[in-house]
Amino acid sequence: MPSDQDWKSIPGGVTAAAGYFAWATHCGISPTGSSRKPDLAVIHSDRAAVAAATFTTNQVKAAPVRVSTMHLRSASVRAIVLNSGNANACTGLPGIQAAQRMARSTAVALGLKEEQVLVCSTGRIGVPLPVEKIERAMPRMVRRSGRNGSARAARAIMTSDTRPKEAAVQFSVRGRPVTIGGIAKGAGMIDPNMATMLCALTTDANIGKRHLQRALSEAVEQSFNRITVDGDMSTNDTVILLANGPRDAPLLRPATAEFGRFQAALTHLCGQFARMIVLDGERVSKFVEVRVTGAATRIDARRAADAVANSMLVKCAWYGSDPNWGRILDAVGYSGARVREERVDIFYNGVSAARGGMATRTPLAKLRDAVSAAQFTVHINLHLGLAEHTIYTTDLTPAYVRFNMGE
Amino acid sequence: MPSDQDWKSIPGGVTAAAGYFAWATHCGISPTGSSRKPDLAVIHSDRAAVAAATFTTNQVKAAPVRVSTMHLRSASVRAIVLNSGNANACTGLPGIQAAQRMARSTAVALGLKEEQVLVCSTGRIGVPLPVEKIERAMPRMVRRSGRNGSARAARAIMTSDTRPKEAAVQFSVRGRPVTIGGIAKGAGMIDPNMATMLCALTTDANIGKRHLQRALSEAVEQSFNRITVDGDMSTNDTVILLANGPRDAPLLRPATAEFGRFQAALTHLCGQFARMIVLDGERVSKFVEVRVTGAATRIDARRAADAVANSMLVKCAWYGSDPNWGRILDAVGYSGARVREERVDIFYNGVSAARGGMATRTPLAKLRDAVSAAQFTVHINLHLGLAEHTIYTTDLTPAYVRFNMGE
Repeated sequence: MPSDQDWKSIPGGVTAAAGYFAWATHCGISPTGSSRKPDLAVIHSDRAAVAAATFTTNQVKAAPVRVSTMHLRSASVRAIVLNSGNANACTGLPGIQAAQRMARSTAVALGLKEEQVLVCSTGRIGVPLPVEKIERAMPRMVRRSGRNGSARAARAIMTSDTRPKEAAVQFSVRGRPVTIGGIAKGAGMIDPNMATMLCALTTDANIGKRHLQRALSEAVEQSFNRITVDGDMSTNDTVILLANGPRDAPLLRPATAEFGRFQAALTHLCGQFARMIVLDGERVSKFVEVRVTGAATRIDARRAADAVANSMLVKCAWYGSDPNWGRILDAVGYSGARVREERVDIFYNGVSAARGGMATRTPLAKLRDAVSAAQFTVHINLHLGLAEHTIYTTDLTPAYVRFNMGE
Repeated sequence: MPSDQDWKSIPGGVTAAAGYFAWATHCGISPTGSSRKPDLAVIHSDRAAVAAATFTTNQVKAAPVRVSTMHLRSASVRAIVLNSGNANACTGLPGIQAAQRMARSTAVALGLKEEQVLVCSTGRIGVPLPVEKIERAMPRMVRRSGRNGSARAARAIMTSDTRPKEAAVQFSVRGRPVTIGGIAKGAGMIDPNMATMLCALTTDANIGKRHLQRALSEAVEQSFNRITVDGDMSTNDTVILLANGPRDAPLLRPATAEFGRFQAALTHLCGQFARMIVLDGERVSKFVEVRVTGAATRIDARRAADAVANSMLVKCAWYGSDPNWGRILDAVGYSGARVREERVDIFYNGVSAARGGMATRTPLAKLRDAVSAAQFTVHINLHLGLAEHTIYTTDLTPAYVRFNMGE
């Protein structure tokens, strides 16, 4: 049992919390997908639940994002249906209809209303979704759905991911265990036309819809919104959280210790998934934390961190274990953040590379050691204020280019 | 003789216009530079001249940029001194002093004042400039300076460039020939810590300093400001134009046909250099024109073109000759430009890939043919307004990554 103070990691994923069921099947969505890897998954709650979600901010939104946004307005959401092999993006009105049919067939099989089902798709952009294959596979998949289906669902949503991603945490509220679990799939726009990051989370906490959304938005801001592999934002990015806590469980209210614990556990879990996604980035070789401190404003801190984390030249240098602080300072200089060159300090894993905008006397070998590690931190102190921001990113490798060069 | 209507390309470079002299020498600036390639160049006018210049907008500016900005205020500028092998950037106050000494030694050798000399450096960032080597080489270099020194100067400023870049154009004003010529070096942040784009231009036109600046700014906006290899903006980017037209030559005044001809010729010449620089990009394989039309505003057009031209995923797809319009639409969607997905048309070399945000029936083979060419155009019509913008860029290759991975 967790203490009242802490959360702990537990085995399992999206069915770790009470009342959730999942399954996945292969229905052959991608015509080129030769394997029998599952490509369709369902997650559902056996009792009333509320939902929160965050979606891509890209103005080009996939059909499932549009349909899920509408369905999120319902008072009760009890299921998520997800597919890989086709993003159902850039597919026009027929795409919207296909996403609605996906929700409807799930609802029919589960005895729910269409608007109680959220929809996620990932895969090729601009190709019509073969929704009849999904409809055909649905009844059997739902019949087999069980408490042990999480791992299978995690595999079903994989595209270029090399590992399925599952995790769960547990904490207690007035002596009663509360669980949050989930599955996720990888960042980076992947495979020819492949899209993006999906995360489905479930919890048995008793929490109102509005507060659930607030907690999820905060957790996403601290986790998924801080990772970048290539700076490209997909049309399909989605994070969903269902909560099905029974009425007799303690209600989580904002500004209480319990709510704080829920927030901390949820943020930790999202952070775990974000880290898994970056570490499983497309053929990258290094995990880099870019930390900007001393910025004049929070926007400045974010801009500087973004520019460094997305600079091709900086990322190439990291790949080559080249402690090239000049490229970092250059990126900070064009980021749009306020900078005074003569104040900027740069550290690799705490080792000083530049001080006051100029080289330090640190031996090159020592700096090279820091950048040679598979994981390291770049800390940039602008010495202009108190704002800071951290981003997690990767290097840029020849293998990344080859992997993303398409067909 | 060119007609009064047109300009024509002529042989030569930065000494093509009357009254300009140049030379270059190897003084051993970079300790690792094993070859005897020249690394120091001088360009000067034998008569009174005025100067215009545009510099990097990066907030981190190299010492030569700071010193040249000050010297540009002088009524008369007659010389440019340039070196490769060291960018004299992120070098603090000693860097400023080194750049001033570079200008001073040039001025002494030429019998000018220090503030009549502009300074350009390119090469490693954050390493003190061995200015004494430059001072030692200066008198002899200036003595040998001649009307035939342009090609040698073009070689001296090369870093990762594979070819020296020289060009000149000529047109006539009231029957009298006017020449503009120059040398340039490559874009892309190059070699470990290497910096950037330099262009030195000279003309024998008679034109006031203020109007010269206006013409140069306009030409740069239409050329160098429209190219991108990796989106990184260097600390040293500089374009300089000297004009030494004699008092008895016709004075070029704005809003006259002559001034229009000068502007057109200058813009054409800058465009030529911009194109050379992109084509000689670091280990890239394709030259791509990204044209956005139908944007609601000019800023939107530029944002959309920038996002597409700098998307790693789009560039990887180009490298693989993959006509992946989904990634292009995705980049437009996150660019910040106003977009209505259902209106967007995308063409490769005039072949329709997407219409109204959805795939067309164009056979994949036909699209792949267009993207397989070494040069092609991507045209994105947003159908929201009349604004447009064009950018010239490249693909992203494994060789680029390997080349930029450092030591």
